[in-house]
Amino acid sequence: MNRRQLLSWIGTGLLALWLPLAPVHAQPDPLPSWNDGPVKQAIVDFVGRVTREGGPDFVPPPERIATFDNDGTLWAEQPIYFQVEFALDEIRRLAPQRPEWKDKEPFLSVVAGDLKSILVAGEKGLLEIMAVTHSGMPIDEFTKAVRDWLATARHPTKNRPYTDLVYQPQIELLSYLRANGFKTFIVSGGGVEFMRVFAERIYGIPPEQVIGSSGVTKFEIGADGKPTILKEPEIEFIDDGPGKPVGINRFIGRRPIFAFGNSDGDLQMLQWTAAGNGPRFMGIVHHTDAEREWAYDRQSHVGRLNKALDEATARGWTLVDMKRDWRIIFP
Amino acid sequence: MNRRQLLSWIGTGLLALWLPLAPVHAQPDPLPSWNDGPVKQAIVDFVGRVTREGGPDFVPPPERIATFDNDGTLWAEQPIYFQVEFALDEIRRLAPQRPEWKDKEPFLSVVAGDLKSILVAGEKGLLEIMAVTHSGMPIDEFTKAVRDWLATARHPTKNRPYTDLVYQPQIELLSYLRANGFKTFIVSGGGVEFMRVFAERIYGIPPEQVIGSSGVTKFEIGADGKPTILKEPEIEFIDDGPGKPVGINRFIGRRPIFAFGNSDGDLQMLQWTAAGNGPRFMGIVHHTDAEREWAYDRQSHVGRLNKALDEATARGWTLVDMKRDWRIIFP
Repeated sequence: MNRRQLLSWIGTGLLALWLPLAPVHAQPDPLPSWNDGPVKQAIVDFVGRVTREGGPDFVPPPERIATFDNDGTLWAEQPIYFQVEFALDEIRRLAPQRPEWKDKEPFLSVVAGDLKSILVAGEKGLLEIMAVTHSGMPIDEFTKAVRDWLATARHPTKNRPYTDLVYQPQIELLSYLRANGFKTFIVSGGGVEFMRVFAERIYGIPPEQVIGSSGVTKFEIGADGKPTILKEPEIEFIDDGPGKPVGINRFIGRRPIFAFGNSDGDLQMLQWTAAGNGPRFMGIVHHTDAEREWAYDRQSHVGRLNKALDEATARGWTLVDMKRDWRIIFP
Repeated sequence: MNRRQLLSWIGTGLLALWLPLAPVHAQPDPLPSWNDGPVKQAIVDFVGRVTREGGPDFVPPPERIATFDNDGTLWAEQPIYFQVEFALDEIRRLAPQRPEWKDKEPFLSVVAGDLKSILVAGEKGLLEIMAVTHSGMPIDEFTKAVRDWLATARHPTKNRPYTDLVYQPQIELLSYLRANGFKTFIVSGGGVEFMRVFAERIYGIPPEQVIGSSGVTKFEIGADGKPTILKEPEIEFIDDGPGKPVGINRFIGRRPIFAFGNSDGDLQMLQWTAAGNGPRFMGIVHHTDAEREWAYDRQSHVGRLNKALDEATARGWTLVDMKRDWRIIFP
């Protein structure tokens, strides 16, 4: 035995001693905020199956597309969608410069903080609020307004910045999927230009992987010769319900193998995912924790989960029981 | 001098001997199909500057967005856009099953191979040809039709499969950019669902990084309970001219730092790229090689390069002279 053989033999011996310990030491739990149980197991099993090279369920990395709804799936959505809170705050911020709003609804109620009157005024008032805060400016200006708002605004009851109200277990799930060669996308009814401001920082999802609702935009060269993209008031695309598979087809061009939602607005995305060939994972967050978060489903005005709850049960999709399955909710 | 110092000194000495040779041996030319000259140098300099960590022009990888037009920039576009050739071949393939086309223009001329009559019939006839071959079917069926066509069709004069008519220097450029942390996108007036069939295989660009023109699509659950996405005849988005920055904003949500086109339809994409802060690269392929490819610019009915040629010259954008700068054109 020469020196090289000896070293090699010692090396192998050490490796043999080390191996039985390796799983415990080398691989910390990638989903520490998920409680052990059937849901966590289903996720880990699925990822194991599609990444096992040579296995019957192996999926090549470029086809490992995972899509997530945002409101109620990646961050909270109560008492109203955070983007609506942004719009209401924007009205208050802009009101001093807009004397024409002084005696006009819905602006009067917004400035007075009278949420009930706004809701009574109905959809027309809300659409007007969304239009004046989301159009009529260059895209850069809108992005700045969202960034400024996120830096200072706080949730009315949780008293934390909105970006703190993301779900820690889902942040871990996104990272876990990416570490296993998945490409993670947001597919949300929320405004695409709103979500892109924070999606990269809080979810690790770059702007080009955020799909959402959008308004018409227009390219223009200003008097100063500088090109801008202007946000126009017309709605261009509603990325909700049947709009979700349409958006997935338009923006990704490939069918997801993994999709997560929390409401009836996600049903068609889940159906479209389920109908593909090969292994599939369909998940739904069920809001069951009135203490740590909120509890709501079939009757909720925000994030109603009714038809999709029936279909998930009937078809054996994975239902996350927030109270049971999530050890930690917010970071 | 102890042994360690000696070894270190020898090491340094060897390194000094080695260094002048290193560029030749360690780094093969990443752009072998580009002739040496100012254009190749401008590309290599730009990539060097934005990737030099700590340098004044460093751009973090997530912001290294590069957008390329397709027709005339990544593959050829003469005598007519290849997607139009596909549509004409589809009419011929489908005609036996469509008796209602028998005595009707433009179908009559297409089946007869009478291209002149089709062009005389004008835009209306061409739009009808595009509509019947690009809508009224599920997306999967359209994808299959394109795939089948690409496998058998041959270019009328070059007598090669269309996917062989890609530009080898641009294939190398795409790889070179990706190897340097760029994310490469197609931003083309061509149909997004047409390009996605081959973009990954021939350019290494996955479907989710292909932006193009699109028709309206509709999500439907069939009588068999199976969901489909149907291609409808209405046009939804024209990704050309001012539509290019609009499409970039909608699909990428970030401004490119590197853009390449070849015609006036790319002008606004180049203007939008140029108007950002920090280092920028704007490139235009000028078709100057009548022998190996085609020579055309200001008067061409396909890929007209007129205004953008003036602006490129005035603003010092990089003009690729195909004849001078490309050692090889097709693979």
